[in-house]
Amino acid sequence: MTLNIHRGMSAELQPVRATMATLSVCLLCLCHSAPTSLREQLMQHEESQRTGGSLLLTGTEVQVSSLLRSLMEQELEAWQRSGKFPPAMHFFRARKLIEQSPVFKLIQRMPKGAALHIHDYSILRVDWLIRNASYVSHCYICFTTKNSVRFHFFAKDPQTRLPNCSDWLLLETLRKKISNVNEFDNSLIRNLTLFTEDPEATYPSQDSIWRKFEELFGVASGLISYAPVFKAYFYQALLEFYQDNVMYIELRVILPPFNRATKCASPSISPGPTLELLHMQVYELDGTTHDKDWSMAAYRDVAKQFVAAHPDFLGAQFIFTTHRNQDVSKIKEAIDVALHLKEKFPDIMAGFDLVGQEDEGHPLWYFKEPLSIPALKGINLMYFFHAGETNWKGLDVDENVLDALVLNTSRIGHGYALVHHPAARELARKTEVPVEICPISNQVMQLVSDLRNHPASTLMAEGYPMVISSDDPAIFGAKGLSYDFYEAFMGIGGMKSDLRTLKQLATNSIRFSALSAELKAKATALWQKQWEHFINETMALEEQGC
Amino acid sequence: MTLNIHRGMSAELQPVRATMATLSVCLLCLCHSAPTSLREQLMQHEESQRTGGSLLLTGTEVQVSSLLRSLMEQELEAWQRSGKFPPAMHFFRARKLIEQSPVFKLIQRMPKGAALHIHDYSILRVDWLIRNASYVSHCYICFTTKNSVRFHFFAKDPQTRLPNCSDWLLLETLRKKISNVNEFDNSLIRNLTLFTEDPEATYPSQDSIWRKFEELFGVASGLISYAPVFKAYFYQALLEFYQDNVMYIELRVILPPFNRATKCASPSISPGPTLELLHMQVYELDGTTHDKDWSMAAYRDVAKQFVAAHPDFLGAQFIFTTHRNQDVSKIKEAIDVALHLKEKFPDIMAGFDLVGQEDEGHPLWYFKEPLSIPALKGINLMYFFHAGETNWKGLDVDENVLDALVLNTSRIGHGYALVHHPAARELARKTEVPVEICPISNQVMQLVSDLRNHPASTLMAEGYPMVISSDDPAIFGAKGLSYDFYEAFMGIGGMKSDLRTLKQLATNSIRFSALSAELKAKATALWQKQWEHFINETMALEEQGC
Repeated sequence: MTLNIHRGMSAELQPVRATMATLSVCLLCLCHSAPTSLREQLMQHEESQRTGGSLLLTGTEVQVSSLLRSLMEQELEAWQRSGKFPPAMHFFRARKLIEQSPVFKLIQRMPKGAALHIHDYSILRVDWLIRNASYVSHCYICFTTKNSVRFHFFAKDPQTRLPNCSDWLLLETLRKKISNVNEFDNSLIRNLTLFTEDPEATYPSQDSIWRKFEELFGVASGLISYAPVFKAYFYQALLEFYQDNVMYIELRVILPPFNRATKCASPSISPGPTLELLHMQVYELDGTTHDKDWSMAAYRDVAKQFVAAHPDFLGAQFIFTTHRNQDVSKIKEAIDVALHLKEKFPDIMAGFDLVGQEDEGHPLWYFKEPLSIPALKGINLMYFFHAGETNWKGLDVDENVLDALVLNTSRIGHGYALVHHPAARELARKTEVPVEICPISNQVMQLVSDLRNHPASTLMAEGYPMVISSDDPAIFGAKGLSYDFYEAFMGIGGMKSDLRTLKQLATNSIRFSALSAELKAKATALWQKQWEHFINETMALEEQGC
Repeated sequence: MTLNIHRGMSAELQPVRATMATLSVCLLCLCHSAPTSLREQLMQHEESQRTGGSLLLTGTEVQVSSLLRSLMEQELEAWQRSGKFPPAMHFFRARKLIEQSPVFKLIQRMPKGAALHIHDYSILRVDWLIRNASYVSHCYICFTTKNSVRFHFFAKDPQTRLPNCSDWLLLETLRKKISNVNEFDNSLIRNLTLFTEDPEATYPSQDSIWRKFEELFGVASGLISYAPVFKAYFYQALLEFYQDNVMYIELRVILPPFNRATKCASPSISPGPTLELLHMQVYELDGTTHDKDWSMAAYRDVAKQFVAAHPDFLGAQFIFTTHRNQDVSKIKEAIDVALHLKEKFPDIMAGFDLVGQEDEGHPLWYFKEPLSIPALKGINLMYFFHAGETNWKGLDVDENVLDALVLNTSRIGHGYALVHHPAARELARKTEVPVEICPISNQVMQLVSDLRNHPASTLMAEGYPMVISSDDPAIFGAKGLSYDFYEAFMGIGGMKSDLRTLKQLATNSIRFSALSAELKAKATALWQKQWEHFINETMALEEQGC
């Protein structure tokens, strides 16, 4: 028997049926349309609501979607047999499994649109920093008392030391003395990522992993802040995203010097450098340092150069950020800088954000005064606030998702806590404020262990506007966007996802970017062309049995 | 500056404000009522929506609520300092911390209403089974080849063995030969719970913990199924819930013999007993066994006896259950049994449910035909389906929450997956179908590690109808409802919870029970009296500085 509501309204369905008329979802409309069961109607309704559920696919897209579904099912069966489902595992253990996945390989080939939530010094695989940047002439290293390292480029042997650090050693000389340089370089690479075989034991708490995370920026900073490396790093990072089929990025940038809370305040390496230095000011071999304008201009020029060489890449815009663990006057200064940058670099300056561990920093509302300045001046400085990157509920920082909206944010960074704020969520949905979901980041930073439990799952089921991003892929051992897309697709979206889910997530990244209407149109046309190529390529590969 | 919408509509708020008129939540109404900021309005709206948010407290209740809030804050500070927040830890590690918590102690004293989701053979602390039941004359033990034990009462030394088991040994004799009986008994107790120091290593997967979980019923069954123990166990269990300030229970009962899937089919201990035996048929020393009617009558009589001795306890009703891992014909038989029980025990037979691991069993829809029989016969057999006790998304069993509704369930057991089903959730809310949330169970059975990530958090923020229960407290090392209430209150509800949250959860348990309207009124009056006592007692203790 099927519970068909046209078959005389079975007694057991009447109470449910009677209530359907009061539902705001138009289930009742469906009731009159076809002799399908209530069950099917509910399922169809959920089907149409979820991310991508309202998209109509072309004939060829439908074929690719079927192919994708069969790949998913094969994988699921295999994972169920082995008991190892990558999204349910820590990414450090899942990465190799993901790399073997045909679904992942398809996602890699797919044009994913834009990366809208990534951070300046962690966007390029860390081995490049060691195997390339640290081989640039004049690179020095010192070994800290806490089993870490620092790098710096000097014209000649420096006479000063960093506190709690060995003498500076010229890497070129050091490598000549070492028998296994490859192993030495590998050990340096390990100093640049959070990767470990046993993440639970290595990082017993969120605080401990945040401290290590911030320390890593200090390690990378000595290399990346050297002006020639700074430019090369950004170029290579664009290449890495481009090769992962990403066509545009919005990069959150610190543009050092920035004034962090007192304990880590030193803006340049001398005088009085500290080991907690997070982002060094960009410097030249002779010791001159560059200001924010220089860095911004460098980003602009490198992006232009990259686009010239890769015309199917759209470019980059920049979200100026500062650390939330500062006082109101410093944020006021940062807002002034943001307004200056907006005036000086109108084409690439996307907006402003605050970074750092939310649970440890000031809540957004603490900064309501400086953050209200642009609007009071009648200037439209767009905000892209990190908000709700916490699993504490009901504390001050848990209000950040709500405050981000009140302060008129254009997107919500992470928004992990959004599902606990029904009024904020409804307001955000109506005002089309998307969340930037970074699955691997949330897992590595210990908000959630099994990504099937990620709250974005609820949001995806409702078709809440969202984009997928990778936050700090280099430090997490990921690359580009594909790993996060895989986790979001298989783990957060689940087994009802299909090509429409992926297509919607990709197109969302253009729709919710900071691009002007004109550039969005250009981006969409560019993406559409790439998408068609991807669809045809997938069918061709399938026909070849690949 | 405060972002007060009556202070000239700051430019930055206009876009948000303009949209508020379109919100279905009546934020706009609030805008006209007082010169409070948009932020405050959003917060007030969320405040009123959450579980208990619409309750009005009396003056004394407000004082108790403040006291509770200050206890919560003290605890939170302590946990934040130590890095150990019990709901974020595995219950096996958190239990001792919880027991030291003043919030927990207050919850223990609080009248919690009814326990609506608990299972027959795991409702009384397991040490009672060893320290009391196993000391009853004629208790035999055998040791399995898999490092476990089985118990059985025999009039004289049995001549047969269980497969893969040692000879049966009379416990009385055995204990005389053992030097440290206390340690021996402790080791037996360990055979009856999932408790271990290192749950992650002991149970590497959901499947492994489910197998162990089901095995534990087999261990306990030999003791509990002995008729005199059967009655004593239920009486003691009622006492344990009563002492935890629970006034009524709805117990899911197997009433063996039940026909599980073939591999574990044997309904009695001989002939052909199997080690996988989950629930033995209730038996006497002379080998006679009892049928379902006997068990049901025994439950009824014990409950009556208990109520006679404890007039402020309301009693018990029973949800007849069978294993979902059976074929359609067996479920049809079970439905026939349920209808028979309903006729024979109309006052205590609450309804019907299916038990067992959802991911491994048949989806509900597989049984649509037998489950539709009562309605087709015009009989109102209430359903209390386990549904959505999974973190797989998009598989057949993930539709169970939806199918439970289509099949007219009165409550949803667990409903862990409900947040991924927006149409089902909306329908359930409108039809007032609550979820039975069992936090510790979901954590121990590996659906979620950090209870702050439990999806019920989203449901509580929206005031979705729910009750808190403890599922199988004995096997998890919990007791009554207080541990689960603590986890739900501190972990799932979070730091905005207060006395209203607890009061709502307690009153929900009466409102959503299977009691008749008349008995609900009686229960409410009884509970209200207990509640007033609790409030006054709390104030008195506070005044005495306790």
